[in-house]
Amino acid sequence: MLLSTNSRKHKVTVIGSGNWGTAISKIVAENTLANNDLFQETVEMWVFEEKVEMSKDSKHYDPADPLCQGPQNLTDLINKYHENVKYLTGIPLPKNLHANPSLEDAVKDSSILIFNLPHQFIIRTCDQLQGKILPYARGISCIKGVDVQEDSLSLFSETIGKKLGIYCGSLSGANIANEVAKELWCETTIGYDPPHLDSKAPTPVGGSPSQSHVDLPSFEHKDSSGHFSKVKLRPLPNDYPPIDHGLWKTLFHRPYFHVRVVNDVAGVAVGGALKNVIAVGAGFVEGLGWGDNAKAAVMRVGIGEMVKFGTQFFGNSVETKTFTEESAGVADLITSCSGGRNFRCAKLSVQRGLPIEEIEKQELNGQKLQGTLTAAEVNKFLKKKGAEKDYPLFTAVHRILEGSLKVEQIPSFIEAKL
Amino acid sequence: MLLSTNSRKHKVTVIGSGNWGTAISKIVAENTLANNDLFQETVEMWVFEEKVEMSKDSKHYDPADPLCQGPQNLTDLINKYHENVKYLTGIPLPKNLHANPSLEDAVKDSSILIFNLPHQFIIRTCDQLQGKILPYARGISCIKGVDVQEDSLSLFSETIGKKLGIYCGSLSGANIANEVAKELWCETTIGYDPPHLDSKAPTPVGGSPSQSHVDLPSFEHKDSSGHFSKVKLRPLPNDYPPIDHGLWKTLFHRPYFHVRVVNDVAGVAVGGALKNVIAVGAGFVEGLGWGDNAKAAVMRVGIGEMVKFGTQFFGNSVETKTFTEESAGVADLITSCSGGRNFRCAKLSVQRGLPIEEIEKQELNGQKLQGTLTAAEVNKFLKKKGAEKDYPLFTAVHRILEGSLKVEQIPSFIEAKL
Repeated sequence: MLLSTNSRKHKVTVIGSGNWGTAISKIVAENTLANNDLFQETVEMWVFEEKVEMSKDSKHYDPADPLCQGPQNLTDLINKYHENVKYLTGIPLPKNLHANPSLEDAVKDSSILIFNLPHQFIIRTCDQLQGKILPYARGISCIKGVDVQEDSLSLFSETIGKKLGIYCGSLSGANIANEVAKELWCETTIGYDPPHLDSKAPTPVGGSPSQSHVDLPSFEHKDSSGHFSKVKLRPLPNDYPPIDHGLWKTLFHRPYFHVRVVNDVAGVAVGGALKNVIAVGAGFVEGLGWGDNAKAAVMRVGIGEMVKFGTQFFGNSVETKTFTEESAGVADLITSCSGGRNFRCAKLSVQRGLPIEEIEKQELNGQKLQGTLTAAEVNKFLKKKGAEKDYPLFTAVHRILEGSLKVEQIPSFIEAKL
Repeated sequence: MLLSTNSRKHKVTVIGSGNWGTAISKIVAENTLANNDLFQETVEMWVFEEKVEMSKDSKHYDPADPLCQGPQNLTDLINKYHENVKYLTGIPLPKNLHANPSLEDAVKDSSILIFNLPHQFIIRTCDQLQGKILPYARGISCIKGVDVQEDSLSLFSETIGKKLGIYCGSLSGANIANEVAKELWCETTIGYDPPHLDSKAPTPVGGSPSQSHVDLPSFEHKDSSGHFSKVKLRPLPNDYPPIDHGLWKTLFHRPYFHVRVVNDVAGVAVGGALKNVIAVGAGFVEGLGWGDNAKAAVMRVGIGEMVKFGTQFFGNSVETKTFTEESAGVADLITSCSGGRNFRCAKLSVQRGLPIEEIEKQELNGQKLQGTLTAAEVNKFLKKKGAEKDYPLFTAVHRILEGSLKVEQIPSFIEAKL
């Protein structure tokens, strides 16, 4: 526990309220209540307002209640029943979690912003937030994946940070939202590494043993294509508790949600993107009936390519052990290759002899596979960098998807490139 | 490929002929045939002779054939039909693999000895081999696990090496024998690191980029309890092809069996032992229905404890990446936690509310679980070293097995010890 002698408390806002956003809001609100010396108890959750009918599956459903008659504002239902009846039915939410339909109002005076919304809404949401947030706020992005363009890669946390002029870390792990919401035990990894201050920085509690990270006025960021951009970082007023590894652990760690905090923000995010490509590969060999040895081989080769990709394109800040020893790396990969949708659809595509797009249509009810998309984006990027041959598994998965390689050729393809 | 200008060729003998011994013999015989510039084509496989009836499942079964009438010598059946009709039915074996019921005859003049037999037979077999083998032979142990005594740990490869006065490396990986025999793709790891010679050692082909390991007259071995023992190592005559990482790769690598050679012999063996304890833990949480997140968390924590155990008790020779990046580490763990018997029995024990010994009886047809045994041995050893608290997962698994901890307590137990 941090013993706070600070006169101000952090106000926390979660931006996003899907099943993962709501599960994270629940955790954070449980912790602000338990640590009200550091945080204001009320957590704001921004909800994209929609009209919904009260779910008959909810135990709060009562045909006599006017709120259960006809379409209602989702925020009204959440605030009345303390349940997200649309996206996380059946899970009781803390009473100190407040659903807010106004983005501007939700973030007002918040020193801590948690981003948890589909990645296609990031830019638009940040545009709306400009000038509305505290200039010294700090963020955590719970958005999985990496924004891959033909010749550049960027982390969603960086996109957010640059758009808003704040520092933003990332959170990722083997975290299936519904299991987390049910308080089934799991682990997660938070990456947070703002520019270093001097040696007088206080020692962090819990988390990584490295030095604490408090706030510097500005930092330069170099992206994967070598472009520098200067982000002016505003210092946190010193009447707030410092935002360091220990504070993040206090805000997110629960008995059922174990948190490890590391410095490697990029590694945390990159693992969450590339695991989906590997899961497609694992599903392919599983579809052939090649057994557990072969699936484990795909995963092992995949971990190696994740490490290589991270260090080659994100430089020295990326650490091998984020991929091999943290929840955001190896554990998230294991979960994705156990029963995740990318794994499952790839397996079915081999078993049924159908293109994966066909399986996607049959099985996913309009949703899209992340793994096939990432495989194509990563391949385009690797081609541009002349690095395709250094990533035989990623390349094999992409070629199988585009029809120029057979699943049976994976072993010889990997061997040839070794 | 090694280009050999040597006048002598290696003779290879496999000691053991269970399903894993036979699968390895098949691989090795395929490679001696393909590389008969380095190896004598015929591979000897020592078979513990027994009388068996020809399997009616074999495609060679012919009621008119005298060998198919009544009990026959297993070696006669193997050599006639090129099939191990008792332990690997249905898999054609290379014709250059010779089943030999005489241990002494099988190892005569062999410069390469592959040990692949149940670990309880190692000492007895080595006793019989003393004085019968070439004094400069080199070995590879395919025996999974580590010999754990109350206050010492030894690798089976070391036990073999010391008993016979030869150097012995180890082979382990995500290698379910029947899948390997069917030539379903997998990977394996060979650890080989005899005492270093001088800088004139030839560069190895393939395998690890480190320096080659040829032969020194003797080396000192320090075991985990700090005892030194001197093994007199006899140099390999220089008219043989050198036995180095490249040679091992040539002998074991197949299109369906991908080999990586590393220096870390202990890491390769330790992973193969400890994964079974972790698989029991993963089975426990799976039995509770806690889902994929929780299972992945157990595995991640387990990898961390494997690394710690290896480096704490086997010293500098152990490398983290053997556990986190090699088939003998993370991939073997993944396979064991997918459907291995330790995982499966632990899961059933929670689901049925029965002690695991009961499930063992119901499910394993007289065979014993390795994981429960190793958990107890490791715990006794850790207690003796005063290190129990540094290994919360291993300790939790043991305590659950002995009835002093509940499966539901795993997360808080792990957290308390962090």
